[in-house]
Parts: sequence; structure tokens; C-alpha cells
Amino acid sequence: MRFLRVGPQGAERPAVLDAEGQAHDLTPLTGDIDAVFLASDGLDRARAALAAGELPRLDTTGLRVGAPVARPGKVVCIGLNYRDHAAETGAPPPAEPVVFMKAADTVVGPDDQVLVPRGSRKTDYEVELAVVIGRTARYLDDPADAEDVIAGYTITDDVSERAFQLERGGQWDKGKSCETFNPLGPWLVTPDETGDPQGLALRLWVNGEPRQDGHSKDMLFGVHHVVWYLSQFMVLEPGDVINTGTPAGVAAGANDFPYLRAGDVVEVEIERLGRQRHVLGQA
Amino acid sequence: MRFLRVGPQGAERPAVLDAEGQAHDLTPLTGDIDAVFLASDGLDRARAALAAGELPRLDTTGLRVGAPVARPGKVVCIGLNYRDHAAETGAPPPAEPVVFMKAADTVVGPDDQVLVPRGSRKTDYEVELAVVIGRTARYLDDPADAEDVIAGYTITDDVSERAFQLERGGQWDKGKSCETFNPLGPWLVTPDETGDPQGLALRLWVNGEPRQDGHSKDMLFGVHHVVWYLSQFMVLEPGDVINTGTPAGVAAGANDFPYLRAGDVVEVEIERLGRQRHVLGQA
Repeated sequence: MRFLRVGPQGAERPAVLDAEGQAHDLTPLTGDIDAVFLASDGLDRARAALAAGELPRLDTTGLRVGAPVARPGKVVCIGLNYRDHAAETGAPPPAEPVVFMKAADTVVGPDDQVLVPRGSRKTDYEVELAVVIGRTARYLDDPADAEDVIAGYTITDDVSERAFQLERGGQWDKGKSCETFNPLGPWLVTPDETGDPQGLALRLWVNGEPRQDGHSKDMLFGVHHVVWYLSQFMVLEPGDVINTGTPAGVAAGANDFPYLRAGDVVEVEIERLGRQRHVLGQA
Repeated sequence: MRFLRVGPQGAERPAVLDAEGQAHDLTPLTGDIDAVFLASDGLDRARAALAAGELPRLDTTGLRVGAPVARPGKVVCIGLNYRDHAAETGAPPPAEPVVFMKAADTVVGPDDQVLVPRGSRKTDYEVELAVVIGRTARYLDDPADAEDVIAGYTITDDVSERAFQLERGGQWDKGKSCETFNPLGPWLVTPDETGDPQGLALRLWVNGEPRQDGHSKDMLFGVHHVVWYLSQFMVLEPGDVINTGTPAGVAAGANDFPYLRAGDVVEVEIERLGRQRHVLGQA
């Protein structure tokens, strides 16, 4: 099942795609795809309602696509989680997951404008597999328990300002939370449809030129391990988003790719999860 | 003016204290002290309603005190912001503010139980002056503009697990976001009542023994500078909380104070902002 939210920012309407890719209105069931909906078995109820023919068709022609989950409580990120990306940054592969946070209000729709911050010289892109939490996860016993708390998957571009992140003192968060720095979507895809989360190809282009071409099988710490691991350090709540790290090919890497500027077009794709296309603007 | 929220967790009732310290019910004006209330001049409207005698007295005897702001969107923290604390950790004073994040769902009431995480050996305390944002702050021109976006001040205990923070690889956030790690309150105090935010004494005791005894005049980067600075890197929204750093005396410092254990009693006080008392439990 693929879930999405369409309409103007802050007034998105929840929808679900049927097997033919036709959108159906979810408002007979819920006002939004949010923590309350996810925590109350909303995705399963939507599946049943769709099968029962209770959800009217919805014409989404020309409508903006929003992030597929409303107001995530937190966005937790895993750093250096692909061997090739760790290598291109000059960092040794971490012995256990590197954890940092992104302000949750950076989340925008997959095709919304992304703003280069004022004073930025090094705005960078990062395609990432994003996990959306569906049930509270606290001190999970085992990585195998992670499956029960995952609502589904979507695409993140974990936009980063490298000078803010690495050259301005202290912690990475300073370069991760600028406004619009987390395009999310287009769809929340349930695990039955994605299959093995370690079986997905990830790609990113800038102005049509390929920059990242990775695969989630190359994660150092797989999705289930990451969810289990995080649950030892914090409580994961329904609607929370985990950005699971990016493969090689970022501008800050060894390839001498240019950093992003206003007018650049970034396209992001993950197998079975759809595609983003956002244009850079200037804050 | 001093604002507070009383009642069971998740069902707090908003209130305001009059000049005599008597509580008045805010529910004729708002369902909660949250982003919407703050952004709509709620504090000024409350002041007017109280003066006009429109808010009934509220008996708070025996009621739990919650955090004074509901569901902060984010909690942004400043590290090493007192010269004596930077020195006790062995770090040089930072050239510009060190920024990290704490999961906003760590916020609990000032007297709620704080849980030592499973596997913790180094749970630590940090008294901090907390800023509550009242209006959106985005690329403020000047530190002098910060005053306009600050709703008021309260007390934070920025509880930290030092081994998770410093010995488990990567970024500090890993040791900052454990459940219950941000007692906040008791009151949201408006700036007219606190006076100069750099004029406040901060103190913390463990089991009655003094551990921290600092003063906000010793901040490396003052409150207005911090708010201006953060607004260059992220958008600050109404209800957001900024923990502005801790003075010397933490367990991780040079004093060889023991780390916290279940049963310990932590008392935290900031001049004009009231007092917290929380008992440690085991997660």
C-alpha cells in the first residue's frame, strides 16, 4: 500500500493508492496521516476500507504532493552508514551507529522548493531511505522486533550545509536543520510492498547528471538494527522519521562535485518508493 | 507574569499566577499553553483577562505541575556556554555557539521522575536557563531583535548520559534524548518579571549537597546572541525551547561528583524562575 498527502502546505488531504495507482480519498477514515492515525492501526483500517470499496476516488491532477506523514515528532538521522560514503568523507567506518537529529519542522514535500541558506557555500544533497515509525518503540529486545514498529518507508533528501555542519564548531546538527532541509516522500510505502528494506537501489541526480547510485544492501547497520539500536537511547513514537544514511557521491565527498545553488534541480529516486524532484531557491 | 500547567501528564490545565501567587484558570482563554496560544499574543491576552478579573481562581493544592509549555516543536541546546564548565570538561571555550538537539518528547514536568536509562553508568545533571520562543524567528538581523521573539524563561535540567554522549561514537545527541531527560518548569516567566536574562543565579543540589552554583552573567554567548545566532541556521517557532548551557559542577567535570542513581533527589533552582525537585528512577 502507498499512502500520500496532497494539497497546499498545511492543508494536505490524506489519500491511498490502489493496485492500479489510482488515488482514493482517506478522509472518510481520518483527517490526516499522523501519529494518532498510525498508532490506531490506521494503515490496516485503510487497507480494509479500500478493499470494501468505502474510499471514493480522488482526482489528484495538478495537486502538490506533501510529505506523507504530518508533523513528525522527531527526525533522527544515522551518519556514515554506508562504507563508500564513510570512505569518501575520510572517516573510518563507525563501530556503532552515529546518531544525530534534524529539526522536524524542516520536513517539506518531495517536490517543494529547497532553500540554500543565507551565507551558505556548501549546501549538499543526500538520498536516504527513511523509516516511518508506526508503534512506540522503547528498549526493543532484538533487531527482529523492529518490524512490528515500522509503519513503512519513504524517501528523504537529507540536505546538509557542510560548512555549518563541520567548520563552525561543535556538533553536526548546526548544518542539518535549516528550513526546507528535509524533502520527504512522495509515498509512505508499507513493508509488504517494499520487501526487504536492504534490497533497494537509491539514486540521485543534479541537473540531470548522476551523482549518487547506491544500494541499501551496503548499509553498515541495517534498518532493523538501527531501529533496535535507537530504541535503547530514546523512545521512538508513531510518526517519527529515521533517515538511515546516504551512499557515496555527495558534493562533500572525493568526487569534486559542485555544491548546490539556486536554480539547480535535484532528482531523487529509491526503488519501489517513487521519485522526488526539487528545485533549489535562495533563502 | 508566571504561567504554568497543572494536572495529570497529557491532561494539564493552563493557569496563570497573580501578583500574590494565587493561581487563576486560563481555560476561559485557551485550552493549553502551546504554539498557537503563544503565536496569537496569548500571554498579553492573559494579562488583560487577569487584570479584568475574567479568570476564576484555581485551587492547585496537590496537583502535579507539568512543563509550562505543551508539546514544544523542538528543543535546541547550546553546549559549553559557561567558561567554568568548558574548563572542567577540558574543552577550550568555543569560538561560536556549539549547537545540538534534544528530542522534544523528553520534556516532562519539573518534579516528575527522571529515569536512569538501561545500561547507563554516567547519568548526569545540568541546570540551565531555558528560553521559550513566542514568535517565529528567521534570520534575525541583530541580537537586539531577539527580545521580540522570546515569550519567556523557565528552568531546564538538561539530563545527559555521558558515556552515551561521548564514548559511543559520533555526535552528542545519543546521550541527550533518553526518555524523561528534560524536566522543564515550573513556570514560564515573562521577561518583564525576570529582568535581564544575564542577571540570574543558577543552583543545583543532589541529595541536598550543592553541586552547581553559577550565574547567567558568565555565559560565553548571552541569551539574545544565542537566539539571533540560531535564527541564522534554523527557523525558531513559537513553543520551541532553547537550553542555554550549564555552569560548572556536573558529575562529568573535574570535581569527581558521583553520577546519578535511582533514588537520588535532584533539586534545581534559578533566581526568579522557581525550583524543581525530581527523584531518579530506573528505566
